[in-house]
Amino acid sequence: MTDKRQARSVALLTDYGISDWYVAVLKAVIVRHTPGVTLIDISHDVAPGDIAAGSFILQQCWQSFPEGTVFLAVIDPGVGSARRALALHAAGRFFVGPDNGLFGFLAGLAGCYEIDVRGPDMPMSSATFHGRDIFAPAAAQLAAGAHPQELGPARNEFNRLETITPRILPDRVDGWIVYVDHFGNVITNLSRAECPAWVRSEVVEVRAADRRLPLSRTFSDVPPGEALAYFGSGGLLEIAVNGGHAGRSLKLRPGNPVAIALCRPN
Amino acid sequence: MTDKRQARSVALLTDYGISDWYVAVLKAVIVRHTPGVTLIDISHDVAPGDIAAGSFILQQCWQSFPEGTVFLAVIDPGVGSARRALALHAAGRFFVGPDNGLFGFLAGLAGCYEIDVRGPDMPMSSATFHGRDIFAPAAAQLAAGAHPQELGPARNEFNRLETITPRILPDRVDGWIVYVDHFGNVITNLSRAECPAWVRSEVVEVRAADRRLPLSRTFSDVPPGEALAYFGSGGLLEIAVNGGHAGRSLKLRPGNPVAIALCRPN
Amino acid sequence: MTDKRQARSVALLTDYGISDWYVAVLKAVIVRHTPGVTLIDISHDVAPGDIAAGSFILQQCWQSFPEGTVFLAVIDPGVGSARRALALHAAGRFFVGPDNGLFGFLAGLAGCYEIDVRGPDMPMSSATFHGRDIFAPAAAQLAAGAHPQELGPARNEFNRLETITPRILPDRVDGWIVYVDHFGNVITNLSRAECPAWVRSEVVEVRAADRRLPLSRTFSDVPPGEALAYFGSGGLLEIAVNGGHAGRSLKLRPGNPVAIALCRPN
Repeated sequence: MTDKRQARSVALLTDYGISDWYVAVLKAVIVRHTPGVTLIDISHDVAPGDIAAGSFILQQCWQSFPEGTVFLAVIDPGVGSARRALALHAAGRFFVGPDNGLFGFLAGLAGCYEIDVRGPDMPMSSATFHGRDIFAPAAAQLAAGAHPQELGPARNEFNRLETITPRILPDRVDGWIVYVDHFGNVITNLSRAECPAWVRSEVVEVRAADRRLPLSRTFSDVPPGEALAYFGSGGLLEIAVNGGHAGRSLKLRPGNPVAIALCRPN
Repeated sequence: MTDKRQARSVALLTDYGISDWYVAVLKAVIVRHTPGVTLIDISHDVAPGDIAAGSFILQQCWQSFPEGTVFLAVIDPGVGSARRALALHAAGRFFVGPDNGLFGFLAGLAGCYEIDVRGPDMPMSSATFHGRDIFAPAAAQLAAGAHPQELGPARNEFNRLETITPRILPDRVDGWIVYVDHFGNVITNLSRAECPAWVRSEVVEVRAADRRLPLSRTFSDVPPGEALAYFGSGGLLEIAVNGGHAGRSLKLRPGNPVAIALCRPN
Repeated sequence: MTDKRQARSVALLTDYGISDWYVAVLKAVIVRHTPGVTLIDISHDVAPGDIAAGSFILQQCWQSFPEGTVFLAVIDPGVGSARRALALHAAGRFFVGPDNGLFGFLAGLAGCYEIDVRGPDMPMSSATFHGRDIFAPAAAQLAAGAHPQELGPARNEFNRLETITPRILPDRVDGWIVYVDHFGNVITNLSRAECPAWVRSEVVEVRAADRRLPLSRTFSDVPPGEALAYFGSGGLLEIAVNGGHAGRSLKLRPGNPVAIALCRPN
């Protein structure tokens, strides 16, 4: 094995929770096949079956990981049905999981392979635990240095989730809330990079839930208990309460509308 | 050290929770003694003192881990009392923890050693944190390549939990619910392997909480929101709701009765 | 690299929670810079912004870790404000985090360096995720073998939290509750080492919330459901209920007073 192969890590994202033994079984399968691999949990607290949340989480963090990282992502409400099992290859990283939209953000970036679940290195599969029987064995092979094309045939397409892109008007950008994090910080689909130049050069306000918030830089720019909006560490517009839980106190949830609007002089 | 010794992992199962520093101290003790060891969490969310749940979790997953794995299992309501500390050896794996029934499923499979808590390599023990002072040091020694017999004298017996085996009748198998997982899937003590042949060859129904459910293969075999029964990935009969939480919606809990019955033509 | 460098581990303590991707990003940054490092979670369940709880947790466990360990501690309600970023060196271990009191227990023990956030090896920093942009890169450099002085200039002082030391009277020691753990065990700031000799040699009682408890050794010294006091595994006086949750059943919280008093013959 080369050094590069030895450096491969497996990062795990599931909706399995951490109370049971399911995550440990994924890891057991991986270390049995590929001893010494570095295992990193992304999250196992995705709400059961919430593909959109899982996809968003993976999208936010995958580029922080080094090249060679294998992402094992199993949010799979359709386990045991006909949905395909995928191995993707994008920007030097690898992705393994069900073809249900979870990897949609890689469209146009990724080479796609359908895992041959009856391949010579694959165990007999149960109908309800493909994480153990299909996805973890595939991730373990990639972590040991296999290329995704060794896992099955190339495919031209994979599923993505239906998303609505922000609407850009001359004096307003309309988007919506996509995630509320552990701190209660509310994350929107409005990215700084995609906003028109006046968002950065002019005085603007952020509108959400009948509130109008100034665009700030960080939490301590406003007094404790006050709400603010800012472009967060992932480049997306966020709404927070300094020292508080914006999701609860402003009653904001995924799906709610948000806008950035030009403040015109009266 | 041989390669085999280097490959040993320690898998941890406790009721310590993940909010405090107790799990980290177990790991600190292990890496201090055995640098480079792979640490894998099974769960730390076992309800405080719930030996039966901890034992079930360990029983479900230990065989997925490679040979050489050391299981450090500390659910120990009797800490500081006279109960013995054990190191077991079964099927190439090692088990360390209190002698309170946690390892009962290994009866007949395992060599058993009583850890000499005053051995030369053991620290002075507190009365309330034997995980840190006895079990983690013992696990660390096993992970570094020690054999359990180096930890203390062989014992012929160790405690097991009192369990009631399923009752097999000509047209019915009676069992009960032993676990409800994070998804709300309800797991019973009826294993496919131990059921009579007619369970697999004839049309049967599963009875639980005044419900009669068909025996299905996977969640998507029934419409969303519908209940089903199936033999799960561990070979045990389970009851689930497709896309839902069977434990809550069917009001099923550990200890409730369940049966598989022959559907006779009317 | 020397063996010693290879053995360095990074132990992580944050208030990030485990539902989102933030902890994974810290780890991704570290393994990208320092492949093969051992990562150990202390806790990510510190209440958001609770510097006192985070500091107490770190104080309780840091000495269990081997020399060379790097502690990455990010409880940072002032992120983006002017507070300094620190790298400390104490007793062979390293500590990285914000200068907000989190490391106050190291006063007098630690060499202190202010991380130069514009140093040549530091990424451009966001205003809201210094864990990713400042602290994890600094921890990764230490884990790879750097000395804290390579990260920035030495400083003479760092912040500590205001604490009130126990009051020692001829027949009573007054302190207060500092932490309630996952089991509901209540931990005080009264340490066995700092108590006068009569606490160990005479018959004493522990007073908390209108209760008078005997000083016991371990949980099973009292019947199930009964309350007890004992010096815990960290050397601090604790109050517990055998098989129960003392914090809830005795209604004890951080900040409540507690005392050890001499039982005088009537």
